[in-house]
Amino acid sequence: MNTRLGALLSILAKKRIPGLFVSSAPNISYLSGSPSRDSFLLVTQQKCIYFTDGRYYEQARNYLKGLQVKRIANNIGDELFNALKILGLKELGFEEEYLSFAGYRRLESKFGKDFVLTPTRRLVEELRVIKDKYEIIKIKKAAQIAKKALSFIEGVIKPGIKEIEVAAELERFIRYNGAGASAFDIIVATGKNSSYPHHQTSSRVIQKGEVVLVDMGVDYCGYKSDLTRVFLSDKINTSVRKVYDIVRGAQQEALKKLRPGLEICQVDKAARSYIQRKGLGKYFVHALGHGLGLEVHEAPGISSQAQGKIQQGMVFTIEPAVYIPHKFGIRLEEMILTNSKNCEVI
Amino acid sequence: MNTRLGALLSILAKKRIPGLFVSSAPNISYLSGSPSRDSFLLVTQQKCIYFTDGRYYEQARNYLKGLQVKRIANNIGDELFNALKILGLKELGFEEEYLSFAGYRRLESKFGKDFVLTPTRRLVEELRVIKDKYEIIKIKKAAQIAKKALSFIEGVIKPGIKEIEVAAELERFIRYNGAGASAFDIIVATGKNSSYPHHQTSSRVIQKGEVVLVDMGVDYCGYKSDLTRVFLSDKINTSVRKVYDIVRGAQQEALKKLRPGLEICQVDKAARSYIQRKGLGKYFVHALGHGLGLEVHEAPGISSQAQGKIQQGMVFTIEPAVYIPHKFGIRLEEMILTNSKNCEVI
Repeated sequence: MNTRLGALLSILAKKRIPGLFVSSAPNISYLSGSPSRDSFLLVTQQKCIYFTDGRYYEQARNYLKGLQVKRIANNIGDELFNALKILGLKELGFEEEYLSFAGYRRLESKFGKDFVLTPTRRLVEELRVIKDKYEIIKIKKAAQIAKKALSFIEGVIKPGIKEIEVAAELERFIRYNGAGASAFDIIVATGKNSSYPHHQTSSRVIQKGEVVLVDMGVDYCGYKSDLTRVFLSDKINTSVRKVYDIVRGAQQEALKKLRPGLEICQVDKAARSYIQRKGLGKYFVHALGHGLGLEVHEAPGISSQAQGKIQQGMVFTIEPAVYIPHKFGIRLEEMILTNSKNCEVI
Repeated sequence: MNTRLGALLSILAKKRIPGLFVSSAPNISYLSGSPSRDSFLLVTQQKCIYFTDGRYYEQARNYLKGLQVKRIANNIGDELFNALKILGLKELGFEEEYLSFAGYRRLESKFGKDFVLTPTRRLVEELRVIKDKYEIIKIKKAAQIAKKALSFIEGVIKPGIKEIEVAAELERFIRYNGAGASAFDIIVATGKNSSYPHHQTSSRVIQKGEVVLVDMGVDYCGYKSDLTRVFLSDKINTSVRKVYDIVRGAQQEALKKLRPGLEICQVDKAARSYIQRKGLGKYFVHALGHGLGLEVHEAPGISSQAQGKIQQGMVFTIEPAVYIPHKFGIRLEEMILTNSKNCEVI
C-alpha cells in the first residue's frame, strides 16, 4: 500500500465511507503514482482496483505496482458493479465534481435502490495541495527545463519572426532538454495580442520595439511548470516600461509578504493594492496565481476570495498583470515553493 | 443567427425545450464558430449569450459575431440565473454528459424547486457528426499538414535518435507549416514500446532494424487530424513485415467496403475478420476507428457495437492494428471523408 492511498483510506475511514470511486485523471495519477488517463480507480479498505481499456491495459499491468489492474470489457459501470458485489459493499463514495450527471444516473440505475452513492468533495485534491518530496523533485525539474527554455528563446526572438515560430522553437527545445510535453499550449503574444490574458499564439510577425510575452510550462513525469516572461527591446516605449516596472513591483510586494502561515488572500491583496495605488487596478483582471502540480491549475487558488493559509509544501504561481485593451499587456509569473520557514522562487 | 445555432434551435423547438445550457467546450466552439474554452453558452429562442471570465472576455468580444458576450463576475450559476430571470424562462435543458453531479446540484439549489432542469443528450454532438464545408476545409488542411510532417520525419528517423527527439522535430515542423498546435501528445513508439497501443513517448534510443510507430495529428483552427505510420527499415525481421502486411491488408478490406449507406459495424467487421482469419484477432484490442473534427475522438465510433450507417459528411479514422505483447505493434491509420457517393482517404 503506498502512502497516498493510505492517507486517502484514513480519510474514508474517518468519514465512514467504505469505498471511493475515483474518476478524475489527475487524482488517479496521484494515487497510483503514475500518469494516467482513460482509467478509473476503486479504493476500498480491502483492495484497490485500477480499471482501464485495451489501449492502456498492458502498460498499466507493467507499470503499476501494488494495484490490481482490470481491463474494462464493456463499460465501467459493469466492472464496478461486479467488483463491489465480490467485496460485499453496499455504499460507494464518488467525486461529485468529476462524475457527470449522466454518469451518476447510470451508476444509480445499475446499482439499484438499496445501494448508497455518496457524493464526496475534494478528498484527493486536499491531499494534493501539500506536495511530497517526490513531487517537489519533479516540479523543480519541470521549472528548471522551462527556465532554460525561456533563456534560450530570448536569443531567438527578433523582429520578423512569427509568434508561432517562437512556440515551435520552444516545443522542440523542451523535448531535447528532458520534458515529455508542453504543460499547455504555449502563449506567444506580441504587440496588441499581449493585451489578451490568454492569447492564442498566431502567425503574427514580431515588429520592432514590441512587447513579446511568452507564457509556457512543461510536463516532467506528469508534473507541470508554468512561467511567464515579457521580453522588451531596448527601444521600448517608456509607457510600456513604466507598466512593466509596476507589474514587477507588484510581484515584489507579494514575494516580500509570502511566508507560511499568511492568509492566502493577503498575498493577492499585496500585489493587487500595489497595482491599484498606481492607478491600474482595473486592468488586472484575474487572480494573482494558482497552485500547480499534476495539473497546471489546481488548489490553492491565490485570489482575493481564497480561504486558508500558506502552508509548507504548497506550490503555486504569482503572476500579477496589467492588460491595456487594444494596446499591450504585461504579465510576470514565477513559481513558488513553500518551505518550513520561507517561500522559495523555483 | 448562424446556421449551426439555427439547427440547434429547431431541435430545441421540436423537443419543446425553451433553452439549452451548453457546457462542453467543443460544442461551444462548434456553435460559436470559434475555438472556445473556459466558457459557457446559453441558447434560447430569444437570444444566445456567451459567458466567459476576465481572461477571455476581450477576445470573445472582438471575435464572436452575433453572440452577446457576458463576463462572469462571480460564478456561472449566478449569471445563468440572472439571464433566465430577464428572459422569463422556467425551464432549461443541460448537457447531462458535460455537467458534473455537483454542477447540477448547484443549479438545482440556485434555481429552486419551481424551475425545471431537463437533461439532454448529444443534441449538439449529433449535429457535429455531419461536417459542413467550412469544417471539411479545415480538417483537410489539418490532415495535409500532418501528412507533410510524416514525410518530413521519415528522413529524420534513424538509429541513435531518441523517441522524444522525433517528437521534438515534429512539434517544430508542424508549427512552421501552419498548425496551431499538436492535436494530442505525439506518440513515437520504437521496438517493444510499439506493442503498447498508446505508448508514452520516452527517451528510448532507436536501434537498428526496429519498428518505429508514429501517431500524430495537428490542430488547425480548432480542427484535428490523426494519422499513424509505421516506419520499417529494409532489414526488418520478416515476421514484423508479415504482420505489417496483414494490418495493411485489413485496412484495404475496410476501405474497399466503405461507402455511404453501409452499416458502420460492417466496416469494423471487414478489417477485424481479415485479421482474425490470419490468426491475429486477439492482438487487435481496440475499435477500428473514430470520428474526428473539433475533438480527436468524437462520433461516430467505428466499432463492432456501432449503430447507424456511414453518411455523407462524416469524417473518421480507419486504424487496424496488431500488438504482440513484449515484442512490437503495428497500427496504420488513415483519415476518411464520406462524399455523396464514395469515401475518400484524406
